[in-house]
Amino acid sequence: MVVRGAPAIGITAAYGIVLSAIEHSRHSPQDWIELVSKDLDILSNSRPTAVNLFWAIERMKKVLHASDQGNVVTSLLQEANAIHQEDIAANQKMGELGAALIDQPCAVLTHCNAGALATGGYGTALGVIRSAWAKKMIDMVYADETRPWFQGSRLTAWELEQDHIPVTLIADSAAAYLMKTGKVGWVIVGSDRIAANGDVANKIGTYSAAVSARYHGVKFMVVAPSSTVDMSLASGNDIPIEYRDSGEILTYRDHRIAAEGVDAWNPVFDVTPAELVDAIVTEKGVVLSPDLEKMQAMMKR
Amino acid sequence: MVVRGAPAIGITAAYGIVLSAIEHSRHSPQDWIELVSKDLDILSNSRPTAVNLFWAIERMKKVLHASDQGNVVTSLLQEANAIHQEDIAANQKMGELGAALIDQPCAVLTHCNAGALATGGYGTALGVIRSAWAKKMIDMVYADETRPWFQGSRLTAWELEQDHIPVTLIADSAAAYLMKTGKVGWVIVGSDRIAANGDVANKIGTYSAAVSARYHGVKFMVVAPSSTVDMSLASGNDIPIEYRDSGEILTYRDHRIAAEGVDAWNPVFDVTPAELVDAIVTEKGVVLSPDLEKMQAMMKR
Repeated sequence: MVVRGAPAIGITAAYGIVLSAIEHSRHSPQDWIELVSKDLDILSNSRPTAVNLFWAIERMKKVLHASDQGNVVTSLLQEANAIHQEDIAANQKMGELGAALIDQPCAVLTHCNAGALATGGYGTALGVIRSAWAKKMIDMVYADETRPWFQGSRLTAWELEQDHIPVTLIADSAAAYLMKTGKVGWVIVGSDRIAANGDVANKIGTYSAAVSARYHGVKFMVVAPSSTVDMSLASGNDIPIEYRDSGEILTYRDHRIAAEGVDAWNPVFDVTPAELVDAIVTEKGVVLSPDLEKMQAMMKR
Repeated sequence: MVVRGAPAIGITAAYGIVLSAIEHSRHSPQDWIELVSKDLDILSNSRPTAVNLFWAIERMKKVLHASDQGNVVTSLLQEANAIHQEDIAANQKMGELGAALIDQPCAVLTHCNAGALATGGYGTALGVIRSAWAKKMIDMVYADETRPWFQGSRLTAWELEQDHIPVTLIADSAAAYLMKTGKVGWVIVGSDRIAANGDVANKIGTYSAAVSARYHGVKFMVVAPSSTVDMSLASGNDIPIEYRDSGEILTYRDHRIAAEGVDAWNPVFDVTPAELVDAIVTEKGVVLSPDLEKMQAMMKR
């Protein structure tokens, strides 16, 4: 949880492999490729849900094994830089594509943090929000505080404040009541993995926001690079969901909130079915009302 | 917020008036009735949403003005005791009536705290849960932690743990995803004010749970004494909603969670429309799929 946000996890893993290669090639010139491979396995087991991690590791693996041994470290660094730069470019492209979907000025709601702090820079959901704000299509960003880690309070609110984009925090459970006021035009979120049929895994609470959005006629947009799409999984049921320690719910900064002896259920992600998603925005294009066929067509671009 | 929970607020106000009468009758024998009346006004302005406060104050006012001056303090104490005892009896009656609605063993979800700590004793929503648990109709109670005050973590979880009823805390935003698992049969909550048409004001997040419940085919039960029903209000639109300081969202125990300079929207209650409510349980009886006619019939009993 020092690094979080699916694209940022992938980029960090790529640079981690570069560091591993520098270190091992220096100290174990005989078997260093094998030692780097072991580090790849450790990285693969660090987080289960965000597919960008596995995608980045696969790219780095190919470079590790394909390159002329003498230039591997340089090639790995070039690949990590490429992953990073491609992510920023993808975010800017998605920012344009997503902002174009907002056809009248409105308030938007976002959940968790899918901003510059979750990516190589600019952001996925916050990239769209930045672009739409620049086009004067957003008058207020409501940010779910996002329990239990408060990514909305600590990260999203900070990012938007830095960019002088007006932001108002709400308790996650106030989102439905906010939508009832009619102020919110779009819910805009990122994703940690998207299945072939358009089902979307994202931070716990995203599904709740999607259910409320549909009930209130609020549109629901998911913004993620194509590296987040996992065409090998038929549906969201196949996406592995990370469960974390119940202490994240029961305590805050070492202070016990909950009664002693009580346990908590702490899924970190949830899956929003494609039928609740109005638009998936990747750098390859926009998929409206996603299904398998449309996702396949988009990924082939 | 030292006293919270609609019935507990009413009972505490009643005893507060007794204390006011004792104090003022001792020190200002000439104009003490007037001084007590001023205290009544202060109490009336302490919290806007829970109607039990105004209901209890009205009962005490009648006694204050109707009684023989020499016995007022005794009469007021008797009335406060009556309010308290009637509340406990109502909770026990509601416990029976509500538990009878659960026709097969299931998990239930509750929001905020509507237990012994929110009432004269036993509880409204938790009274039903206690009764249903005793009848072996509940296998797990999921409790929303209930941001921003964590009444679920601090109060509900503690109460249930004391009674050895199995309880699992969840982040509020995980409620929809929990319902998707199919484990939850009923959402059971209390209320701070119910309008004549069956619209229900309760802790912020209740509406979100009701929207999710309907989407998943989970039943939604509201448990509150008839003193919570305000037949003078046509609908929930007329219920005054308390907004509290944004600091409740932005900080925790004097530690700033949110980025500096950021503001929050902090409604403390929300309104769930009658159409999302499957049952309202009062000590006067059960109203299924509430509307004005059914609420009038129930209140006349």
